[in-house]
Amino acid sequence: MPGVERRMTRQVKVRNVLIGGGAPISVQSMTKTDTRDREATLAQVLRLTEAGCDIVRLAIPDEDAARSLAWIRKHTDAALVADIHFDYRLGLLAIESGADKIRVNPGNIPQRGLKELAAACRANGVPVRVGVNSGSIAREILSRHGGLTVAALVESALQGVRLVEDAGVTDIVISLKATDPLMTIQAYREISNLTDRPLHLGLTESGAPRSGTVRSAVTLGVLLAGGIGDTIRVSLTGDPVEEVRVGLAILRSLGLREGGVEIISCPTCGRCSIGLDRLAGIASEVERGVSGIRAPLKIAIMGCEVNGPGEAREADVGLAVGRGRGLLFVRGKPVRQVDEKEFVKAILDEVRRIVPPEEG
Amino acid sequence: MPGVERRMTRQVKVRNVLIGGGAPISVQSMTKTDTRDREATLAQVLRLTEAGCDIVRLAIPDEDAARSLAWIRKHTDAALVADIHFDYRLGLLAIESGADKIRVNPGNIPQRGLKELAAACRANGVPVRVGVNSGSIAREILSRHGGLTVAALVESALQGVRLVEDAGVTDIVISLKATDPLMTIQAYREISNLTDRPLHLGLTESGAPRSGTVRSAVTLGVLLAGGIGDTIRVSLTGDPVEEVRVGLAILRSLGLREGGVEIISCPTCGRCSIGLDRLAGIASEVERGVSGIRAPLKIAIMGCEVNGPGEAREADVGLAVGRGRGLLFVRGKPVRQVDEKEFVKAILDEVRRIVPPEEG
Repeated sequence: MPGVERRMTRQVKVRNVLIGGGAPISVQSMTKTDTRDREATLAQVLRLTEAGCDIVRLAIPDEDAARSLAWIRKHTDAALVADIHFDYRLGLLAIESGADKIRVNPGNIPQRGLKELAAACRANGVPVRVGVNSGSIAREILSRHGGLTVAALVESALQGVRLVEDAGVTDIVISLKATDPLMTIQAYREISNLTDRPLHLGLTESGAPRSGTVRSAVTLGVLLAGGIGDTIRVSLTGDPVEEVRVGLAILRSLGLREGGVEIISCPTCGRCSIGLDRLAGIASEVERGVSGIRAPLKIAIMGCEVNGPGEAREADVGLAVGRGRGLLFVRGKPVRQVDEKEFVKAILDEVRRIVPPEEG
Repeated sequence: MPGVERRMTRQVKVRNVLIGGGAPISVQSMTKTDTRDREATLAQVLRLTEAGCDIVRLAIPDEDAARSLAWIRKHTDAALVADIHFDYRLGLLAIESGADKIRVNPGNIPQRGLKELAAACRANGVPVRVGVNSGSIAREILSRHGGLTVAALVESALQGVRLVEDAGVTDIVISLKATDPLMTIQAYREISNLTDRPLHLGLTESGAPRSGTVRSAVTLGVLLAGGIGDTIRVSLTGDPVEEVRVGLAILRSLGLREGGVEIISCPTCGRCSIGLDRLAGIASEVERGVSGIRAPLKIAIMGCEVNGPGEAREADVGLAVGRGRGLLFVRGKPVRQVDEKEFVKAILDEVRRIVPPEEG
């Protein structure tokens, strides 16, 4: 089966993470702590990288926040991005403090400041993300387009890119996020036809966990499946670790990220020979039991005889449940019958035989 | 902004729900109760339709389940689908019991039985879904394709369609679900080039809530954005009402379903002037307060001065939070400053002014 064919873009480097030019699609998030609370912010950075976040952004609204970044820098090797608005001097301070990338919305920084910032970026190998959001497009552009449109977003982003290019920045990543998935999809499609700069995908203000997850998965899924996107961020109101988990799940679903255990379990129906709650419980227990494993592995837990054996056979470890017992499959072959009370243990035993704990 | 351009398909009717031919994309789910427990199953059918489910499927594994369907039929006007495997006589019984559609995997029903079933379907205006799953493809097809492939799925589905066509069924919906999103996407794309039968989209065994939601949203999102799909089902291990909510959210995200309140809230960052928990709490309180409203309405709750006012202005009711206060916007216009303790009430008051309770 052919995988996603990605569009080729220029490459930029953010500390040890490559963006664009065929590099693996990286997952980003943003700390939600007050950056001036350096201990809390560092703790969140560490939780994010532990969860698989490749690049962490921090808001730098003032000098204290920039100083906090310098302290955090000493305690982590994570790729850190400083989010800068209005005051270019905070960008200079952030670079001094060890930021690996700067995110700006160039429209809100005066051109003279952009020049100084560009010089510091070049001197330090720091790329710039031109980050346009539907909520902060210049009034002039909005009025010329008769309001918020795909064309207004694209023009705003290209104008921003020109501003930082003119100021002397060479390594540029672009984002142009709207709150509407369809508008965001169309804007990224259009800009990807107009530039070979790497693209940072996201939806702005995507909302509460369920609807935000769905909206982000649809938007990023459509773009990524079309080969567009070099780095992604899922925005959710809530714990940023959830943003990383959702982002990774989006990439995995399209074969754009390897690794981790995939648990396939049936939705259960009136045909299920053990209860819904019981099957969901088994799936959750297995999920907890394998949470530390980074090797790619597929586990299927199926509640019936219609699709069960077929799916169980396609997995690395599969269980097809019949009445009170289950048939265990390992890499396509039925290996033994298992009693219901042994289901979880039997699956985890086989998993551990395939991925010994030291390799997990 | 142009919406999704849908591919034209033939139309079938399932009770009062049209599938294909440009009809609104319907949302399906399946009861997870033992169908023989008729009270519990009816209760679940009612919860599903209340949540916005257009078509509810029930497993009919035996005669008792078919009798239960007859009783349920008397208590609801919902469009009901009988899921039939192996024994075509259960299909006949289900039609007698008032099923509005039959789902079969034709490979597991003998041709003579299919003929009888087809005659009953035609006589009663009951369409058939040919539902192929990656876990139940005939061994002969699998071995000819060297295992599970996109081509094997498509061939299996087309073979199933031919079987029911040859048996005399005229109204046919097709599904061909795999567990892998990319395989599922490619299979539906291929079959939509080969047939104009309406397509039922889904991923089989899509798993636990978070990863299942992401995998379904990516798969269905990619297909729907490409104009493919006439009816959808999200499969999740857990409460089927969640399947409906996710399905509706997928459709709404692409402008394929109107109605309901959309709450946009910012992910919050170090720039947020009220705490993350507080903003998430406000968003949740507002979400609860508007849960009964079916009219389309957009509410934005934004925690900062960077994107806040812009987003708040794009919503029907918007709040841009500053330090301790917020600026309330109604349909693009700032209307007044609000104290932090009045945030939820102020938003709900404006919502109720736009959508009076009796219209909700």
